[in-house]
Amino acid sequence: RPSLCHRPITINMTQTQTQSQTQSYWTSIEADIAAHLKRAIPIRPPVSVFEPMHYLTFAAPRITASALCIAACELVGGDRDQAMAAASALHLMHAAAYTHEHLPLTDRIRPKPAIHHAYSPNVELLTGDGIIPFGLELLAKSIVKNGSNSDRILRVIVEITRAVGSEGVVDGQYKEFLCSQSKGEESWNLGDIEYVCKKKEGGLYACGAACGAILGGGSEEEVQKLRKYGLYVGMIEGMLYGVGRNKKGMEGEVEKLRGLATKELEIFNGRKIEKICSLVQAGLCSV
Amino acid sequence: RPSLCHRPITINMTQTQTQSQTQSYWTSIEADIAAHLKRAIPIRPPVSVFEPMHYLTFAAPRITASALCIAACELVGGDRDQAMAAASALHLMHAAAYTHEHLPLTDRIRPKPAIHHAYSPNVELLTGDGIIPFGLELLAKSIVKNGSNSDRILRVIVEITRAVGSEGVVDGQYKEFLCSQSKGEESWNLGDIEYVCKKKEGGLYACGAACGAILGGGSEEEVQKLRKYGLYVGMIEGMLYGVGRNKKGMEGEVEKLRGLATKELEIFNGRKIEKICSLVQAGLCSV
Repeated sequence: RPSLCHRPITINMTQTQTQSQTQSYWTSIEADIAAHLKRAIPIRPPVSVFEPMHYLTFAAPRITASALCIAACELVGGDRDQAMAAASALHLMHAAAYTHEHLPLTDRIRPKPAIHHAYSPNVELLTGDGIIPFGLELLAKSIVKNGSNSDRILRVIVEITRAVGSEGVVDGQYKEFLCSQSKGEESWNLGDIEYVCKKKEGGLYACGAACGAILGGGSEEEVQKLRKYGLYVGMIEGMLYGVGRNKKGMEGEVEKLRGLATKELEIFNGRKIEKICSLVQAGLCSV
Repeated sequence: RPSLCHRPITINMTQTQTQSQTQSYWTSIEADIAAHLKRAIPIRPPVSVFEPMHYLTFAAPRITASALCIAACELVGGDRDQAMAAASALHLMHAAAYTHEHLPLTDRIRPKPAIHHAYSPNVELLTGDGIIPFGLELLAKSIVKNGSNSDRILRVIVEITRAVGSEGVVDGQYKEFLCSQSKGEESWNLGDIEYVCKKKEGGLYACGAACGAILGGGSEEEVQKLRKYGLYVGMIEGMLYGVGRNKKGMEGEVEKLRGLATKELEIFNGRKIEKICSLVQAGLCSV
């Protein structure tokens, strides 16, 4: 039985209206997440702590893992609000990792591409250290309000801590540093690139999609399918814009991942999957 | 009504047997926490990630906030196991903070007293970043096993993330760096020392005691009394062994805090408070 997503995705996208609707769907999610984060991190005393926290949260480039969390929640029939704290926490985890990745340490011989540092290394280190627990606090506190969904949120805390921790993003970052110190980016082999993309973007997107499905009340099968969908979408993101960006000949890999990603959405056939499906179009991977 | 703790603490401590029993109480708690952490962080693949994680977890000097968490749980009638994950998480948060505090950053002009670095700065940074979510994962996962105490553990996650985050330990660390870069430790004023001790050790000990009481099923009053007890005990720790260690004339402050601390335990009069009370004896503050 052919699924909507198995057909070339452009079938859904040829109508300009649909394409613009899809685009505005992601834009509206991003705006909602940004508004939620702005409310959560007002610049308040101690200003020396909250001002850099606010700045660094919004200075980190957006990743779509957070938006995917919301989209997955809505796809399984949940409300946007149910996934908002988790989506925000995911962005905060990413912002902390991004900040620490660009810290000038005494043993970082080949620094990442220079970024603008608004604060001193010490402040950036400590702010990153503050952002991680803050994100998880946001998430844990979101239970108190709702009451009913404690178990789902607890599961999501485990999902997120695992995805960003020592077997997830941190492992990917470590591998990335090892590789970039021993050889130029052009000479990375495909295995290294895949490993890093899987642990970093792949893991975060997979986590985002799974968390959204959990919070939206999806079935276990839906959670696992969306997790895999997220994994592939994140790996595409990493290959196109992350560690794979300077490697030649990634098109074949990316095409393969697109096929795998869309296949995971088959079980949702009949539901409105155009929006979430649009992520596997390269152009929308970074909204 | 006089409380046991209001009388000079030495009344309970003059009998050598009692003193050694008290000492062995804390030793047994520390051993149980260490055993729990060793089981939680086996050296497994990726070894490049878990080996430094294991090492840095145990390289950080013990703080009694973790043991206090267990003692508070037992004081309100709970079992040691109920507070073990939280006590371990607290030690992990402290270990991450300690590791990052000693990182050589390019803008750290006056480094902390030199410590032995078994790993490169990059590895220590990333490992600290991995330890924070790992500690919270341990805690969140401890629910799955028990099932019944979800709400308590969730509350404890909020307690811990808040204590270690931007308004807690990170704020104290920031203040400490500001002060130590602008003036020598001898010339810190009492207000600075109090601020840092309150945010760092004070906040962690208060959190530990409160979390133990929450997990052990203590009443709200017991939770708040133990939180305050922990705050004072932690501040004593900071003044004697932390940022206040080189400041002259702290004895008066410490004595005042001892009085405040023991007063908080009045409501437990009649229960076996000798053990937990023994922390306000200077010699037992760092077991």
